[in-house]
Amino acid sequence: MLREHARYARWDGVGTPFALVTTPLSEPGPGEVLVRVDLATVCGSDLHTVHGRRPSPVPGVLGHEQVGTVLAVGDDVPACVDGTPVTTGLRVVWSVTASCGSCDRCARGMAQKCRVLRKYGHERWDADAPLTGGFASHCVLVPGTAVMPVPAHVPDEVAAPASCATATVAAVVAAAGPLAGRRVLVTGAGMLGVTAAAMASRSGAHVVVLDPDPGRRAQAIRFGAAETPEAAPVEDVDVALELSGRTEAAQACLGAVTIGGTVVLAGTVSPGAAIGLDPERVVRGLHTIVGVHNYRAADLRTAVDFLAAHDDLPFAGLVSGRFALDRLDDAIAAARTSTAPRQAVVP
Amino acid sequence: MLREHARYARWDGVGTPFALVTTPLSEPGPGEVLVRVDLATVCGSDLHTVHGRRPSPVPGVLGHEQVGTVLAVGDDVPACVDGTPVTTGLRVVWSVTASCGSCDRCARGMAQKCRVLRKYGHERWDADAPLTGGFASHCVLVPGTAVMPVPAHVPDEVAAPASCATATVAAVVAAAGPLAGRRVLVTGAGMLGVTAAAMASRSGAHVVVLDPDPGRRAQAIRFGAAETPEAAPVEDVDVALELSGRTEAAQACLGAVTIGGTVVLAGTVSPGAAIGLDPERVVRGLHTIVGVHNYRAADLRTAVDFLAAHDDLPFAGLVSGRFALDRLDDAIAAARTSTAPRQAVVP
Repeated sequence: MLREHARYARWDGVGTPFALVTTPLSEPGPGEVLVRVDLATVCGSDLHTVHGRRPSPVPGVLGHEQVGTVLAVGDDVPACVDGTPVTTGLRVVWSVTASCGSCDRCARGMAQKCRVLRKYGHERWDADAPLTGGFASHCVLVPGTAVMPVPAHVPDEVAAPASCATATVAAVVAAAGPLAGRRVLVTGAGMLGVTAAAMASRSGAHVVVLDPDPGRRAQAIRFGAAETPEAAPVEDVDVALELSGRTEAAQACLGAVTIGGTVVLAGTVSPGAAIGLDPERVVRGLHTIVGVHNYRAADLRTAVDFLAAHDDLPFAGLVSGRFALDRLDDAIAAARTSTAPRQAVVP
Repeated sequence: MLREHARYARWDGVGTPFALVTTPLSEPGPGEVLVRVDLATVCGSDLHTVHGRRPSPVPGVLGHEQVGTVLAVGDDVPACVDGTPVTTGLRVVWSVTASCGSCDRCARGMAQKCRVLRKYGHERWDADAPLTGGFASHCVLVPGTAVMPVPAHVPDEVAAPASCATATVAAVVAAAGPLAGRRVLVTGAGMLGVTAAAMASRSGAHVVVLDPDPGRRAQAIRFGAAETPEAAPVEDVDVALELSGRTEAAQACLGAVTIGGTVVLAGTVSPGAAIGLDPERVVRGLHTIVGVHNYRAADLRTAVDFLAAHDDLPFAGLVSGRFALDRLDDAIAAARTSTAPRQAVVP
């Protein structure tokens, strides 16, 4: 029997402080896993939601980058992505999405675009089952969630972003194809950009990072960037990874790739201006332009494996603050002004 | 010993009639193959060149869609793409490009973008070695050319376009991924478009062909199109193949694809207006946009195999006229007004 109660931060809309709510804990149902949230990080898309730049259900429980410890396991829970059984006490991260596994999109290998997709930290609040986000003491993992164990030597603040930023970048890198020996442009040196610089440079690529901010460019060098020009144009790259969400960066990526080049667009998740595409250049250049949104279970594994294998990189330094759950508003405010791309919430 | 002379049509620039020139034939050098051209077809890009809509070296020998018979084989000529030895008397088509096989692009599997690429029908005239195009009695195939035998039951007028139109469409279809059970949009119902409709429908796709011309739409139905709407928008397609070269068609393709959809752009080989790309739509839609230009050796094999296997399709009806080499100007003029996408030249 679980004797605890859970607490979660309910978001009631733009301009309203988070409301801390207590809810009874119950045993997980079939296929479910009850996890204690040890640390969550505030993702850029949480900020977009809170500041009204992105539509999201109200009320809701936000947060989808977190690491936790398994407290109870329901019947028929499948193993982790790497085959590890899900057992009480296991330290885990989990996918931002939960998929049905049986719709046409799941059947075509697009589980991240499942017809009945659920996303942690993105669902409408359900008073009877509110533990659907990372800004809470506990989270109930539903069937169709990818779970991945976290090695003990990976700190909480490094592991938490695996659920969103790191796994998304893993998907971006997978979409880009082989990077060894390639010249790779990364636009944006925020959380995703420096992670991409790290993954690409550790794959043997020559990495060029474009970002208007000098502090972020310096950060990119610590993550493996070989060149950090202040502004476009960058030319003759084999691969361009757009992770800033800025229109001009997406345009710079299209202009940067050489014959046979690949552009992966992943940063633009809000409505914005169209960019100009020269079809003749795409045709004669044999260019490939790919969009990436969400990610697959395998990408979560790649993310955790990468963070575990490259623990010399200063990922921990990307996270600052350490806010209790009842100070989530302060964490959001700090995210606005901090140079660190992530603030930590410790429920 | 070869006792014949060869004749070729030299193009001396926009507005000038073709000049018929006689040149002595010599034995093929190492790696070379001497072919007698049995029938050539006038491709749309030949027309673009002749009408000054596309830069091309002057003088030149045009023509790059043809079928011929091997007359002599130099030393060390590799086998055809399908393994058939190249021998005297073999009826063949050959690739529009010849690649070095050793530059960085060839090494990366982009032989069609070789650093020292030569293209039949596209090179500057060389008085000492002028047999570089299809509008000639003979053609000298140089090392790095893909050669493919043509089964006897495939008529000359069906085989000739394999060298350009059919193989390009094979490359487009390969870039699009699996088509069985997919909803596929083809924009443009010219030579390439109807070939794409045929390949997609015979792969088990539901094919929608968009073309403003009613006669071409009717033609598309004969090649397997299930729907031929008069105008955009077409929506919810899995794959869109742009083969018209029209800006608005490329735009329609970008707007037509659903989640996980792929757009292959291949028609736009002349400078034109940019199209608007909505990066958020590409990102959230997991879209892929691929450019295809030229093709790989394997695509030539796919092209010939397709034409041989689907001889119930009315490919022969796409070619009209039957002009001697000294009437090439008339063939070009006929191409301007004919409803058939190809005119035949019989050297």
